[in-house]
Amino acid sequence: MKKQKSSLTIIKIGGKLVEDEKKLQYVLKKFAQIEGHKILVHGGGKAASAWSQKLGIVPNMIDGRRVTDAATLEVVTMVYAGLYNKKIVSMLQAIPCNALGLTGADLNSIQSHKRVVKDLDYGYVGDIDFVQTSILQQLLDNHITPVFCAITHNKNGQLLNTNADTIASELASALAPFYQTTLKFCFEKNGVLENPEDDNSTISKIHFQDYQKYKTEGVISDGMIPKMDNAFSALNNQVEQVFICGIDAIHQDAGTSIHL
Amino acid sequence: MKKQKSSLTIIKIGGKLVEDEKKLQYVLKKFAQIEGHKILVHGGGKAASAWSQKLGIVPNMIDGRRVTDAATLEVVTMVYAGLYNKKIVSMLQAIPCNALGLTGADLNSIQSHKRVVKDLDYGYVGDIDFVQTSILQQLLDNHITPVFCAITHNKNGQLLNTNADTIASELASALAPFYQTTLKFCFEKNGVLENPEDDNSTISKIHFQDYQKYKTEGVISDGMIPKMDNAFSALNNQVEQVFICGIDAIHQDAGTSIHL
Repeated sequence: MKKQKSSLTIIKIGGKLVEDEKKLQYVLKKFAQIEGHKILVHGGGKAASAWSQKLGIVPNMIDGRRVTDAATLEVVTMVYAGLYNKKIVSMLQAIPCNALGLTGADLNSIQSHKRVVKDLDYGYVGDIDFVQTSILQQLLDNHITPVFCAITHNKNGQLLNTNADTIASELASALAPFYQTTLKFCFEKNGVLENPEDDNSTISKIHFQDYQKYKTEGVISDGMIPKMDNAFSALNNQVEQVFICGIDAIHQDAGTSIHL
Repeated sequence: MKKQKSSLTIIKIGGKLVEDEKKLQYVLKKFAQIEGHKILVHGGGKAASAWSQKLGIVPNMIDGRRVTDAATLEVVTMVYAGLYNKKIVSMLQAIPCNALGLTGADLNSIQSHKRVVKDLDYGYVGDIDFVQTSILQQLLDNHITPVFCAITHNKNGQLLNTNADTIASELASALAPFYQTTLKFCFEKNGVLENPEDDNSTISKIHFQDYQKYKTEGVISDGMIPKMDNAFSALNNQVEQVFICGIDAIHQDAGTSIHL
């Protein structure tokens, strides 16, 4: 008889939740209560921009993506891997939840390469090559909760800024063979909205076919497109459930559920 | 028959070595070649001051110790746990050495309390209560190399700035019952100097009695005093060998060896 896989919930929280200490406290309490194995992935984009500005570095964004020059890489490493990652870890330890803050460089857990320059040079931005599942399984099986920030490395001494949604999706995909995996992208809205102006217009379910239609109609656009692509990528890799939802949906299947 | 304890080398490198990328590369290569288990502890004091200044925060030092207000704690967390810790981890992974960057909050590995205010309020500075040896043993036995920066926490959600020499000494003391432990404080000089102006005046051996005499004579003063105190504290806790030395002494017993 095949042993049933244990559950793994991967929660990605966006930058806006991380910056607001009260909301962050609320999210982390909910997160810590998740039964079974869990991994937290956090962004911190807006905060990095604010710190860059304080340091006189002008943030350079193209199509909603940050162009990461050497100075910006230093700032995002400081803000994501230092300030926010360690604040989250210490807040989780207080709950208590035995958190371990990680970049992809730590334990060589997520290896990536610098994005190949086509039309545009994104700078020190990493596209993920692989997730080292064995070490993550060891941590999870020891009841340790990994907390990933949006930094990976190329195993050649170079840190790389990496989209947090993509990290969450790649972690879920890589660990899906070993755990019954749920992936939730939590942000400040209740889900994918039919009308961006109306917070109550959450679309409860989106199939891949709907997604194509919503894109054509412009209902889904901008930053939601890579998030949706990451959601479908996870589903294509045997991740069982994927949601885009608000923080109150951490414990229930609410928000927008995504399906192939 | 009692099983012989395996060896553990704890290397503390000072801020000046961390800031100079060429020297850092050299140190890390030497460090990675250490046989047996190893832990790296790094400072980063001067860099934190420079970043504070860039951000318009005036560093407040009393008796060579930083007074850590809330804004300074954010900066040291960014610089120590973010910028330098992750740079070191990614450089070690490239060698390769399977490094894991840690603050005391991660895995609750080092718990401390905010220093009690007597004459002076040092702010968010931590005095160590305990090192959680079981998790560190698990990491070391899995051939993982912990890389500690100078940040701990109080298990109540508060990160605390903590002297890197003290972290190295406390780690060595806590792990000495389980490993044959050597502690080396590496910095930009070759050891404790009899004449601070003469780099070739290294004192090869200092016993506790000599230390008292050197202090009275003013040969040992300022920042060297807490370093020496940390060295003796480790020796009093069954740490086998303690050195204060230059980076070329990572593989040999050179510099100043400290004895009870």
